[in-house]
Amino acid sequence: MVTGFVGAGGAPRAVVRVRSVRETRAAVKCCASSTLHAAATSSPARALPRGFFRRWIAQFADYDPAQYLPFMIGNDALGSIEKEFALELQAASPDDEFVVELERCEIDGEFFLTVPGSVRLHPRLIELPSVQERSDRVERVLRVLQQQGAIQGWRNERQPVVAHFADKPFLEVERAAVPYLGCQSFGTHINGYVRRAAGPQGLYVWLSRRSRNKPTYAGRLDQMVAGGQPVGLSLSDNVLKECEEEATLRGALLDNLHMSGVVSYRYSTRKGLSTKTLFTYDIELPGDFEPVNSDGEVEAFMLVRARDALVQLTQEPDLWKPNSALVFLAWCVRHGVYTMEDDPDDWLSVTAALHPYSHS
Amino acid sequence: MVTGFVGAGGAPRAVVRVRSVRETRAAVKCCASSTLHAAATSSPARALPRGFFRRWIAQFADYDPAQYLPFMIGNDALGSIEKEFALELQAASPDDEFVVELERCEIDGEFFLTVPGSVRLHPRLIELPSVQERSDRVERVLRVLQQQGAIQGWRNERQPVVAHFADKPFLEVERAAVPYLGCQSFGTHINGYVRRAAGPQGLYVWLSRRSRNKPTYAGRLDQMVAGGQPVGLSLSDNVLKECEEEATLRGALLDNLHMSGVVSYRYSTRKGLSTKTLFTYDIELPGDFEPVNSDGEVEAFMLVRARDALVQLTQEPDLWKPNSALVFLAWCVRHGVYTMEDDPDDWLSVTAALHPYSHS
Repeated sequence: MVTGFVGAGGAPRAVVRVRSVRETRAAVKCCASSTLHAAATSSPARALPRGFFRRWIAQFADYDPAQYLPFMIGNDALGSIEKEFALELQAASPDDEFVVELERCEIDGEFFLTVPGSVRLHPRLIELPSVQERSDRVERVLRVLQQQGAIQGWRNERQPVVAHFADKPFLEVERAAVPYLGCQSFGTHINGYVRRAAGPQGLYVWLSRRSRNKPTYAGRLDQMVAGGQPVGLSLSDNVLKECEEEATLRGALLDNLHMSGVVSYRYSTRKGLSTKTLFTYDIELPGDFEPVNSDGEVEAFMLVRARDALVQLTQEPDLWKPNSALVFLAWCVRHGVYTMEDDPDDWLSVTAALHPYSHS
Repeated sequence: MVTGFVGAGGAPRAVVRVRSVRETRAAVKCCASSTLHAAATSSPARALPRGFFRRWIAQFADYDPAQYLPFMIGNDALGSIEKEFALELQAASPDDEFVVELERCEIDGEFFLTVPGSVRLHPRLIELPSVQERSDRVERVLRVLQQQGAIQGWRNERQPVVAHFADKPFLEVERAAVPYLGCQSFGTHINGYVRRAAGPQGLYVWLSRRSRNKPTYAGRLDQMVAGGQPVGLSLSDNVLKECEEEATLRGALLDNLHMSGVVSYRYSTRKGLSTKTLFTYDIELPGDFEPVNSDGEVEAFMLVRARDALVQLTQEPDLWKPNSALVFLAWCVRHGVYTMEDDPDDWLSVTAALHPYSHS
């Protein structure tokens, strides 16, 4: 069974084969091969349901700030911690590593002033001479919560905690604890695409299907290449590494690769607050390029007409890894695949909401 | 004297001639022809001063909300009026057309509650059967203020007043009065560009120099094509009309034209609050295309390496029409000409600030 086709002109050429009927059904739904084979410029743009993206994108800003306390290190707010979890964190801190202060009311003459609470790293930890020592002390507390089952999915992988991407990290925490503390994570997503004809109707995107073995969003649709941003690697080096590992994309082809923007979001999950900033990259590829996965993280690649993939997203959003769908939507805005004409009442607010989390 | 060159490969070809020494100096500064002639891929990217865009972009969100009252028509907030001007508006309303209510304090049991004020269109005007009658009644008041010198630059051109772009206007007001009432305006800006080599270093943009006869920002740099969005014309029709009038851009070339995003801003001016939403379009053009102006609004066109134009903007921002520079900066973000690597501390906030005015 064939999930997608590539071919600069003449006969389509199969690129990936999948095995199960279930997989094939999803793939065919996604690729809409009859549309793929139609001449790119002659077939009309398939309609999008109005209002879908307004409702869909709301999930990426879905949290109640009143339920969270800022996580402060000195004067910097570096995360947001759900109030009940803050109390668990305090109870698990043998040496007051995390100092929790709930809201308080101050009386000054005739005015009542409610001061919002916070979770603070104890000054003793701030004064520790190394990131390593500080991070170890914090990890001791987090481990207690893991043993109690309050932190799930431990990965044994530390992530820097920063207010701004360019900051030197003052603390590193276990990756699984990041949402519980509401700290920011960063990632890089690369949109690979092919132009078969002029205009938005002539654009095709390379999508990957995530491996069934991935711990998160197994089997879902994703960008051609995507990955988290680890400590100690520049954005560019990380992108080149991911391009090589995930798609064997290398050499002169990379001349066309460029940063194209940023997508960010913040929403509540059962593990706390997911706060992510994804740096997006775009690369136009020649029609005869075929991505080949070498790190086992991708099950299949497919080349799909961009407009069809967007229509499909509105029909079955659950086929996608959610934040990758967000990155794809932002790409569609940049390339005129999703325009004001598609969604006159909502396009402006959807476009603005691609940046719901303020970086200020 | 030559301001810019086009040439797909071999000898550069002059496209525009300007007359005065002053003009030539500005043009040469802008075009940096020595850089233009260097091979696009071999010359290194010129450095940008860090932090420039953070400071520069702050002007597009520079206003104090506390100085303004919402302009309400029924339950819709359709503008923002500076408090002193609101009182002038009230004084000029013989029949209470504009009802001004300053902040008031409500006492409910033990709580004091400050209710923000507003400027409201009188219900009698809301009940009028036609937009025309309503707009005429409003114009009568605005004319009084014009005669008093409180509204300047009367154009005899009405603009729709809407909360959302797609809304049917309930009121139309004289264009010169729009900032005084703080109502939204809309425009379309088209980035025309040429690719001479792979990657951001190979991108060249077509810039126009506005005619010396334009009432605003005469002689400043602008997009290849740009214009306000008038009543009764769709976005696409307006863009096609502007492309034809301003650059003689027509026919099959337009297949590559697509909407690419939106830039919006709100800042205070001596005339009130400038609140604009600019729909941006991108079009990649063949190397042998030359824009020709036919409506007298453009004095000259020039093709400039994008990175050079961006560096030049940081050196002499006053050469540009400010909002056109903002649209150019957003284009540079999309095409990797201005990236995180250029401005590690500020790129994220600058990128986010391209949408400072919320559409919610």
